[in-house]
Amino acid sequence: MKIIADENMPNAEILFSHLGQVELVNGRTLTNEQLKDVDVLLVRSVTKVTKKLLEGSPVRFVGSATIGVDHIDKDYLAEANIAFSSAPGCNANAVADYVFSGLSYLYLTKQLSWLGKKIAVVGYGNVGETVYQRFAQLGCDVCVYDPYKQKAISGVNFVSLDDILACEVISLHAPLTSQGDYPTKAMFGAAELSQLSSGVTIISAGRGGVIDEEALIRLHHERHGDINLIVDVWDGEPKINQTLVDLVDIATPHIAGYSKQGREKGTWMVYQALCDFLKHDESLMAKDSAISPGWLPVINIDNRSTKNEEILARSAHAIYDVARDDARLRFKFRENKELNVFDWLRKHYVERDEFNTCFVRGDSDAPSLGLLKATGFSI
Amino acid sequence: MKIIADENMPNAEILFSHLGQVELVNGRTLTNEQLKDVDVLLVRSVTKVTKKLLEGSPVRFVGSATIGVDHIDKDYLAEANIAFSSAPGCNANAVADYVFSGLSYLYLTKQLSWLGKKIAVVGYGNVGETVYQRFAQLGCDVCVYDPYKQKAISGVNFVSLDDILACEVISLHAPLTSQGDYPTKAMFGAAELSQLSSGVTIISAGRGGVIDEEALIRLHHERHGDINLIVDVWDGEPKINQTLVDLVDIATPHIAGYSKQGREKGTWMVYQALCDFLKHDESLMAKDSAISPGWLPVINIDNRSTKNEEILARSAHAIYDVARDDARLRFKFRENKELNVFDWLRKHYVERDEFNTCFVRGDSDAPSLGLLKATGFSI
Ligand SMILES: NC(=O)c1ccc[n+]([C@@H]2O[C@H](COP(=O)([O-])OP(=O)(O)OC[C@H]3O[C@@H](n4cnc5c(N)ncnc54)[C@H](O)[C@@H]3O)[C@@H](O)[C@H]2O)c1
Ligand SMILES: NC(=O)c1ccc[n+]([C@@H]2O[C@H](COP(=O)([O-])OP(=O)(O)OC[C@H]3O[C@@H](n4cnc5c(N)ncnc54)[C@H](O)[C@@H]3O)[C@@H](O)[C@H]2O)c1
Repeated sequence: MKIIADENMPNAEILFSHLGQVELVNGRTLTNEQLKDVDVLLVRSVTKVTKKLLEGSPVRFVGSATIGVDHIDKDYLAEANIAFSSAPGCNANAVADYVFSGLSYLYLTKQLSWLGKKIAVVGYGNVGETVYQRFAQLGCDVCVYDPYKQKAISGVNFVSLDDILACEVISLHAPLTSQGDYPTKAMFGAAELSQLSSGVTIISAGRGGVIDEEALIRLHHERHGDINLIVDVWDGEPKINQTLVDLVDIATPHIAGYSKQGREKGTWMVYQALCDFLKHDESLMAKDSAISPGWLPVINIDNRSTKNEEILARSAHAIYDVARDDARLRFKFRENKELNVFDWLRKHYVERDEFNTCFVRGDSDAPSLGLLKATGFSI
Repeated sequence: MKIIADENMPNAEILFSHLGQVELVNGRTLTNEQLKDVDVLLVRSVTKVTKKLLEGSPVRFVGSATIGVDHIDKDYLAEANIAFSSAPGCNANAVADYVFSGLSYLYLTKQLSWLGKKIAVVGYGNVGETVYQRFAQLGCDVCVYDPYKQKAISGVNFVSLDDILACEVISLHAPLTSQGDYPTKAMFGAAELSQLSSGVTIISAGRGGVIDEEALIRLHHERHGDINLIVDVWDGEPKINQTLVDLVDIATPHIAGYSKQGREKGTWMVYQALCDFLKHDESLMAKDSAISPGWLPVINIDNRSTKNEEILARSAHAIYDVARDDARLRFKFRENKELNVFDWLRKHYVERDEFNTCFVRGDSDAPSLGLLKATGFSI
């Protein structure tokens, strides 16, 4: 069996070579010609998987190590009876880490205490659920708005959009949509933003365009900056509104989901799907061989009398501090006006680990142990 | 015995209360009246210790938990036969950590590899020596310029200023002087800067004014940014040149020396001096009770095949990433034009640990273990 994989798909060779002969290629320049004797095609979002690419090839399985599938013509795949699998949720932990790293930053630099606050999550998909569950396990007063999921799921504190707007921390994880019953485009417009309480914190790591940026800038001026903003996604990326960049506490280039292990998990999920497809489950590679350990395998929290919120913030930042990506974005935008800085930063991202790669050790009855577990650490 | 201590001197009460009765006061508003029954005065740099403050008081020992002594009238103290002690070098490790955190930042974000480069240190005082020795133990090709120390010390690679200017990394740790044989004011002027090699990295963590900032800005333009700058100290602090801020990779508000343990060590050094003065050595408190442990007591580097420079950078940033302080400075300067942002940031500094609070564990023959030790970690 011949397998072609994007050369930037982490671990592809290690994982797939026991299933067949693996060739690594540049996914951007892939042609129909290259697929003429290929059975399995593994791509990232840079490859447009269309009839034109696949027609006449023996490909019978396409895997995409991504959460999005905009680059895939799924109708054609179905029509041509080609199996397809992607990696939904592979970066949910990474985005949740981003959220808590951002809150940790505000706690350490602005003494913004959030553990006891009213917290809102918007969107209860792969990411939103992960974020919501961490807050819930932390014992926070957390609610979520997701009109599509509300009826189908119980045991989750679904509320209205108005209730969300009254919260003190709001974490956005909805996609950008302009159709359907609940389009999200400019869902946080001038009217909604005006309802926000003073001192509110907004974390925007779903999609740009869900917040009306001009309205947000006006609100920021009216409130004299009494609003904390952590912004990863922007309207009109890769060209982003520099006036807004200048106002926000943390500005990052759509990298909330970019953890090392998240990307590896993307490959791993596609690998599992292919094994299923081939009915190969006995010969599955161990997950350990596919997901890298982290830099900091252990944090010890014994004998620490400090506040839980500080322990949490320090531990989070030992693994990943959002300020790192903020400093770099601002530097690059000052340094080089010609370059497409936004995409450059995403392409040259400095690898980071997930909280879950780090085991926390300490007295089993230390309350901070449970909090760190809730925040995504291993114990 | 009555002891008055500045309320912002860390651990003063814990350490000194077994020597006498300790009163904590606001060092900025201290008056002669408050000293009328005081034997020992312990200050920080905010208290001007003069004849006016001390005259007629029973004070016979003054301790300052600082490296600078500009706030102390030492002539008067000698004349009045009052013993004096300060804490030279208490923050040398903190500044050295800053230097390596900065290089780690450049390595991770710009792939700037420095381990094999020619490295220069300017000033071989408490800080310069610490920085030099770390580079030397790392096996780097390091040299130092210090015309005052050159003759007195052997086994150190002293060179001329011209040799320094030919190096690829230059770390500045000289004081600001305008008198003497080798005044440092604008010692890095237009002529010297023009000798710098392309792609040079300058770390400025001694004193502002040693570099001619206008000449540096011109050079940066001429070289089209082909020069890496990590700047902690500025000409004319607290008003700093925003044009320069915009050019540098990392801008921080004179905090290179601000580690938690460095400040504690300042108190500790004064405490030791007072014990000596009182001939109290048997009853010395254990150093452990005066110097806090760090947040990350252990880093494990087993089974890591990655490049040494990356291990070093990751470990350094797990303890302290300069980007954190850069992001905060830039945010504060955007956010609040009225405030004296520079001093505000120094006053509200987010505590950080020293590398030496962290023990590195790993195979004893792993080369990275030795490198981390050289960089200041404990093993
Ligand atoms: N910043 C990043 O790096 C990053 C990383 C991962 C995901 N994302 C983005 O975040 C979004 C969520 O990702 P996901 O993996 O959870 O997707 P998902 O499809 O699993 O979940 C999206 C959820 O949003 C809900 N939703 C749709 N319209 C809504 C509305 N009007 N109000 C509230 N909720 C609404 C949906 O019902 C669904 O539950 C996506 O747009 C994704 O592209 C960004
Ligand atoms: N950025 C910070 O937070 C921070 C922290 C600590 C110290 N500092 C500053 O860094 C400087 C060094 O601190 P230190 O504790 O090592 O002081 P130190 O007095 O121990 O050492 C200063 C050294 O500089 C040398 N020197 C003087 N003139 C020189 C010249 N023209 N060229 C080369 N070397 C020269 C001296 O001979 C001396 O060895 C001081 O100015 C101090 O205030 C800054």
